[in-house]
Amino acid sequence: MTNYVHFFGAGHADGNAQLKTILGGKGANLAEMTNLGIPVPPGFTISAELCNTYIARGTYPPELKAEVEANLAKVEKLMGRTFGSAKLPLLVSVRSGAAVSMPGMMDTILNLGMNDQVAEGIAAEMGNPQFAYDAYRRFVQMYGDVVMGLKGNKSPFEALLHAKKEARGVKRDIDLSAADLKALVGEYKAALKKIEPKGFPEDPKAQLWGAIEAVWRSWQGDRAVTYRRLHGVPETLGTAVNVQAMVFGNLGEDSGTGVAFTRDPSTGEHRFFGEFLVNAQGEDVVAGIRTPQSIEEMAQKFPKAYEQLVATYQRLEKHYRDMQDLEFTVERGTLYLLQTRNGKRTGAAAVKIAVDMVKEGLITKEEALLRVSPDALDQLLHPMIDPAAPITLLAKGLPASPGAASGQAVFTADEAFEWAAQGKAVILVREETSPEDIKGMAAAKGILTARGGMTSHAAVVARGMGKCCVAGAKDVRVDEAGSFTAGGKTVKRGDWITLDGSNGRVIAGKVPTVAATLGDYFGEFMGWADEVRKLKVRTNADTPADAARARGFGAEGIGLTRTEHMFFEGDRIKAMREMIVARDKAGREKALAKLLPMQRSDFEGIFTAMDGYPVTIRLLDPPLHEFLPHEADDIAELAKEMGISAKDLTETVASLHEANPMLGHRGCRLGISYPEITEMQARAIFEAAVNVTAKGVKVIPEVMIPLVATVKELSHQEAIVRRVAGEVFAKAKKEVPYLVGTMIELPRAALTADEIAGVAEFFSFGTNDLTQTTFGLSRDDAGRFLPFYVEQGLLPADPFQQLDQVGVGKLMQIGIDLGRSVRKDLKIGICGEHGGDPSSVMFCHRVGMNYVSCSPFRVPIARLAAAQVALEEKGHKNKSSTV
Amino acid sequence: MTNYVHFFGAGHADGNAQLKTILGGKGANLAEMTNLGIPVPPGFTISAELCNTYIARGTYPPELKAEVEANLAKVEKLMGRTFGSAKLPLLVSVRSGAAVSMPGMMDTILNLGMNDQVAEGIAAEMGNPQFAYDAYRRFVQMYGDVVMGLKGNKSPFEALLHAKKEARGVKRDIDLSAADLKALVGEYKAALKKIEPKGFPEDPKAQLWGAIEAVWRSWQGDRAVTYRRLHGVPETLGTAVNVQAMVFGNLGEDSGTGVAFTRDPSTGEHRFFGEFLVNAQGEDVVAGIRTPQSIEEMAQKFPKAYEQLVATYQRLEKHYRDMQDLEFTVERGTLYLLQTRNGKRTGAAAVKIAVDMVKEGLITKEEALLRVSPDALDQLLHPMIDPAAPITLLAKGLPASPGAASGQAVFTADEAFEWAAQGKAVILVREETSPEDIKGMAAAKGILTARGGMTSHAAVVARGMGKCCVAGAKDVRVDEAGSFTAGGKTVKRGDWITLDGSNGRVIAGKVPTVAATLGDYFGEFMGWADEVRKLKVRTNADTPADAARARGFGAEGIGLTRTEHMFFEGDRIKAMREMIVARDKAGREKALAKLLPMQRSDFEGIFTAMDGYPVTIRLLDPPLHEFLPHEADDIAELAKEMGISAKDLTETVASLHEANPMLGHRGCRLGISYPEITEMQARAIFEAAVNVTAKGVKVIPEVMIPLVATVKELSHQEAIVRRVAGEVFAKAKKEVPYLVGTMIELPRAALTADEIAGVAEFFSFGTNDLTQTTFGLSRDDAGRFLPFYVEQGLLPADPFQQLDQVGVGKLMQIGIDLGRSVRKDLKIGICGEHGGDPSSVMFCHRVGMNYVSCSPFRVPIARLAAAQVALEEKGHKNKSSTV
Repeated sequence: MTNYVHFFGAGHADGNAQLKTILGGKGANLAEMTNLGIPVPPGFTISAELCNTYIARGTYPPELKAEVEANLAKVEKLMGRTFGSAKLPLLVSVRSGAAVSMPGMMDTILNLGMNDQVAEGIAAEMGNPQFAYDAYRRFVQMYGDVVMGLKGNKSPFEALLHAKKEARGVKRDIDLSAADLKALVGEYKAALKKIEPKGFPEDPKAQLWGAIEAVWRSWQGDRAVTYRRLHGVPETLGTAVNVQAMVFGNLGEDSGTGVAFTRDPSTGEHRFFGEFLVNAQGEDVVAGIRTPQSIEEMAQKFPKAYEQLVATYQRLEKHYRDMQDLEFTVERGTLYLLQTRNGKRTGAAAVKIAVDMVKEGLITKEEALLRVSPDALDQLLHPMIDPAAPITLLAKGLPASPGAASGQAVFTADEAFEWAAQGKAVILVREETSPEDIKGMAAAKGILTARGGMTSHAAVVARGMGKCCVAGAKDVRVDEAGSFTAGGKTVKRGDWITLDGSNGRVIAGKVPTVAATLGDYFGEFMGWADEVRKLKVRTNADTPADAARARGFGAEGIGLTRTEHMFFEGDRIKAMREMIVARDKAGREKALAKLLPMQRSDFEGIFTAMDGYPVTIRLLDPPLHEFLPHEADDIAELAKEMGISAKDLTETVASLHEANPMLGHRGCRLGISYPEITEMQARAIFEAAVNVTAKGVKVIPEVMIPLVATVKELSHQEAIVRRVAGEVFAKAKKEVPYLVGTMIELPRAALTADEIAGVAEFFSFGTNDLTQTTFGLSRDDAGRFLPFYVEQGLLPADPFQQLDQVGVGKLMQIGIDLGRSVRKDLKIGICGEHGGDPSSVMFCHRVGMNYVSCSPFRVPIARLAAAQVALEEKGHKNKSSTV
Repeated sequence: MTNYVHFFGAGHADGNAQLKTILGGKGANLAEMTNLGIPVPPGFTISAELCNTYIARGTYPPELKAEVEANLAKVEKLMGRTFGSAKLPLLVSVRSGAAVSMPGMMDTILNLGMNDQVAEGIAAEMGNPQFAYDAYRRFVQMYGDVVMGLKGNKSPFEALLHAKKEARGVKRDIDLSAADLKALVGEYKAALKKIEPKGFPEDPKAQLWGAIEAVWRSWQGDRAVTYRRLHGVPETLGTAVNVQAMVFGNLGEDSGTGVAFTRDPSTGEHRFFGEFLVNAQGEDVVAGIRTPQSIEEMAQKFPKAYEQLVATYQRLEKHYRDMQDLEFTVERGTLYLLQTRNGKRTGAAAVKIAVDMVKEGLITKEEALLRVSPDALDQLLHPMIDPAAPITLLAKGLPASPGAASGQAVFTADEAFEWAAQGKAVILVREETSPEDIKGMAAAKGILTARGGMTSHAAVVARGMGKCCVAGAKDVRVDEAGSFTAGGKTVKRGDWITLDGSNGRVIAGKVPTVAATLGDYFGEFMGWADEVRKLKVRTNADTPADAARARGFGAEGIGLTRTEHMFFEGDRIKAMREMIVARDKAGREKALAKLLPMQRSDFEGIFTAMDGYPVTIRLLDPPLHEFLPHEADDIAELAKEMGISAKDLTETVASLHEANPMLGHRGCRLGISYPEITEMQARAIFEAAVNVTAKGVKVIPEVMIPLVATVKELSHQEAIVRRVAGEVFAKAKKEVPYLVGTMIELPRAALTADEIAGVAEFFSFGTNDLTQTTFGLSRDDAGRFLPFYVEQGLLPADPFQQLDQVGVGKLMQIGIDLGRSVRKDLKIGICGEHGGDPSSVMFCHRVGMNYVSCSPFRVPIARLAAAQVALEEKGHKNKSSTV
């Protein structure tokens, strides 16, 4: 008999959690709770298949009517109330709910079943006519807007409400009397009739069918259709309709409402945690007008209901095997659960709850690993803004590097360095940063830029330094003379500001922060991850300090050392510039000879910090003009310092100018034009390797040639590296094993990876540049339209943060397959920013890479992501938010 | 018995043209001529396999000695001379020669077999001691340099010669007396002995063996090894050694020497054509000191030899079935052929000869088509510098757009336009051009730039206009105030210069040019090409004039109309700028409304010119900042004109600045950010289509969305185009069939071509951008290192001129396969600059494209290349220089 309508109530439901396709997610969950014996207000769900029928034919099977009536009667009986009756009336809610959670469909209709008589009855029952008529007013408005489709410009209701308040000289809705509200209902209905001649349906049954059809129609609404198209949700899925009895927490002092968590969502502590309000409805808790009481106080107020709630929460947690977030109402002493779902939690709580539940025997280690979203770990490792502190938001930018920091605003790298040397905390504020700013960035507590994206210079360097950074804060207008304006305020040099790098917030003044603390359970949890993962995790690090920090986070080697960052400090930049302006090879070699010992000592430090692990060193990559100043004043000053004419230096700078520096004279192209640079770098690497080996350090250098497009470029550079290695080893009478490999960061390299693997002993995918070239998209310029693309669903995510598996990923797969076809045991890794993004790490595992490399603070994230994908491969289902 | 040494002479050779692997190319050809009964000086070839033996073991089989002696004796007998004898001595030449023509091996040694006695004997025989000792001196020098390896810094000879001339107070070598030269020989030998203690070998046999071993060693010379590595020539090939009797054209008035062509190499006219000198050697003809006589005069001087020569040339042409370039010597009345090879010819001659030979029954039409290098056609279509005119070369740049033009130098586009309006011929000289210069470029006779490559803005636009252009002339230093310097000379505004766009020459003054003339045979020849080719050939054209010109050259539609070029003229640029600086959509729409009628009339013109053929229109592509000025003065002027503040305009310009504009906010990204632009362009296209259809024109518009990386971008734009088409058709009550497709110019588009083909009705490969992104190489910046890459063999050719089939081509193949997997009949073409490059056109045929599109003047080239590859596919061997 029950074909289309599925009842739930009084401990029994026609469906359960498995029947999502028929009942939708919401309906299935209501059925599941009911079957568990949880007190849920009774109701019924109309099968999603009818949505298709309705859309196709504009009608529904005639037998549906009788089914709905029969189920409504069951609800009436259980509630002891009658739908449409003035005495003890039954009110219902009507909600949409598809198998897939999907925004854009119909808003919930509450209190359906009201008309003038019913409202009068409720006023009498509650002894509160003002409440009854306010609920009635809201229902008419909601019905008109949502069911009759007046929402938006056509809706007459707000204007009428406003006029009524004006007329009464009051400001707040709640200051209107019951008589005002009653009158307003009449005005609403009259206005409605002017727009829609059939007017507001006084018959509750007509209201119900109107709402049911409105749910079905909402499946074809613009936003819903767009959402499905963008997310590949099939049209034929349809939405179910949920009709459920209303219960009231505001029927007097024996009623109330609340929300609760089965464990502490902030710390993960194993205790019942929540808030409730006596004589109130759910929206009162949310609105924050009254201050709720703690859940423990409920034990005094409603001992029986509280006892039942405790028993219920324990059952629910055991049943769902996860921390639950509950909504409940007590109506005249009777407890009703309105919703249960897996509760949101902080990163720290997620790890603690997972570890505790394993110890409690509730879940397995594997499940624990799959419970924690890798991204959530980020919160654990960085200080946070104290959530209790009041803040004045100046602007929002991109959450470029997590953590929080306060400091005095400075506007040049030199200033940052000098102020910091005086012991001041500073935030470096720049239009955008360049490699010349490194020293100042290192000295600052945090970095704020007005331009640039998640992989801009500021963002990449800050993440590497583990320093908080807000990048691309568009509303920040920087006057580098010494101030910026944002949010209508001006911040001058020396004013305090606070950055929240985890959320991209720029905040006025000095806001207290909370330090990151790693409990023992963190180490235990990460240990489990290491047991199951197959992918190695390395770090990107340019200094011994970074290398040591990353080892602390579990890094198993360095996947990328960028040698150019080493050239910006003190005397180095001077020697570097001498090399660039040199007129001939002899001049360049003279300058390079000065750089050699500095570079060698850098490598000695890094090798020592990574004792026993491989270290991949990328040879000089950026175009040479990045090392020269570009402003006339700076050029003049440098020229004086270097003893050459400003005109000559200006000409050199101009001659190095490039239309598209990203696609210019950089990477191995430099080493090919100036083999003496490659030679110096190779010498520094191998001399350092020989020196630290003599001190008992185990060193495994991997020399990486950047920006290779053809195997001939690689061979050219490889020959130099191997020759120099031979020379150094012969002189030292000692050999150190090493590899020579290449970045795969240009499409052509991936496409000809078979040729390249004939020479390269390892590949490291440079997915930052590979994404730029595959998309033809400069990450420095993408800010103008990329956010809009993501917002509009033209791209599922920023491809510089989350690897584009469909396009860039396909190219990587081609590169891996071709490379391994020639060299079976080719070592393959990734060293772009994606190496620290969970979904990208999982992709790297799936395509058979050996390792990922990421900034030190993301190493734990990558370890967990690697563990999750290994478990997935064994058939475990990943329930964390990352896919 | 003849194992290693292969004799040729007196009408019989041991080998023939087929035995290249053993005899090398040169030896095989000498054998072939001998077998034909052509009088060739006798000699012998030592098999190439001995080269390997010698290199592996440092020695040769002992039996070789006897073989060489025996063959030498045969030569002596035929020549009636004796090797090493003072009386009637035999002198020989020794040459290397591998199966593959290969530079970098040994230079030819002439006059081998001389010592003091032999020299004396020759002096007596010739009655010219000065000549004999000059030959002797040259031989010692050549032997020392080439065989004994002194070439380069170590060589003492030039210094001694110089000293001798100083001492004698003469300037020219030929003013030294016989005694001087004889003394010099002594000094040469003494100097040689100081460097190489074994000294100059007086024994001719020792000289011969020294030279033979030197040939073998030269196989391992640096340049030869590098060449083989770069061109994949196997090491084991080895070089043969050719030893051949010297003959002398300078033994008196009964001797002479000359070169001849079996047809006129300039015009292709069917007549014997050549020059000769009495009593001279080959090098005298080349040196140009004496003026040679025309070949007809030889009939009087040496009637018998002439008759024999005529008979020989006819035989050779019939035998080789191609126009031959002959070298011959008459020694005391006896004719010797020294060489025959297929003669080089102008493009016009190549076509005429091919057509004539078909009519003569010598070759088939297919062979005719395969005889002409498609690139050679370029010469036919453009005026050339008169080859007879003396010139003063100022600089050399890239041959960016062929043809020649003289004009007065101007330095701004405005100047070019104004001077041209006054009827002056001008050459526009710029550091580099930008779209703002279009008007001036159109007005100029030719364009010269100091920067930029073969696909720079100047080059691309000039080729499209069929205007000559020399780009990237590095030695030209432009002062845009009104002069440039080059080659030590300064050219001021108004001075005359001449450009040779076919060779990249910048020439002082006004040099006469020769107009291009197309004979009837050209049309006939191209008709044959059209009969066999399968690939369609379209043109890239932005104006009705270009379109009409291209139709004249045989274009079958337009493959690329760049709409942005249309926005630079007069009022258009003003409206365009208004749109760019507009603060909102309404402002943009207002400006776009002004552009609509202009754009519509452009399309009407183009559609009419291409009546009956498809026209592919690319929507707006370049970043918006290209339409704005960048210098402070220009900005101030424009701001005034537009009635906005200079500060505001400066800010707009700055906000549009991009770090890498090539990878920035352009292509469909503009149309997505500002859908109103796409809408206006679509409206202009369809309104134009409807209007011209009403006039009886058949129009097939193909709307092309540029820079698509994801199918969602394409769908977004496609929806706008189809909606506007529907609106226009509904209003006009007329439908015009059209297609919507996309450029495939980003790697991601090729990699996801299956998704894209779900929406796109055609693909057009934009190989300029695809090459840039696949290589990660900006064509504007590549000039700094790309020429070096090509020179060093790191790349086989400039990938912007010749499609990189290995990398970019693989990506194209992926894109084609994926696209056709979804849409079987997907129309696929190419519209990058490669569409006019023969090897790239052939690639396009092989991968199954439907058409190529190129600039109007390259249409015939593409037609011929398409014919050649179609013939190749049928098994015909392509002998033209393009592979």
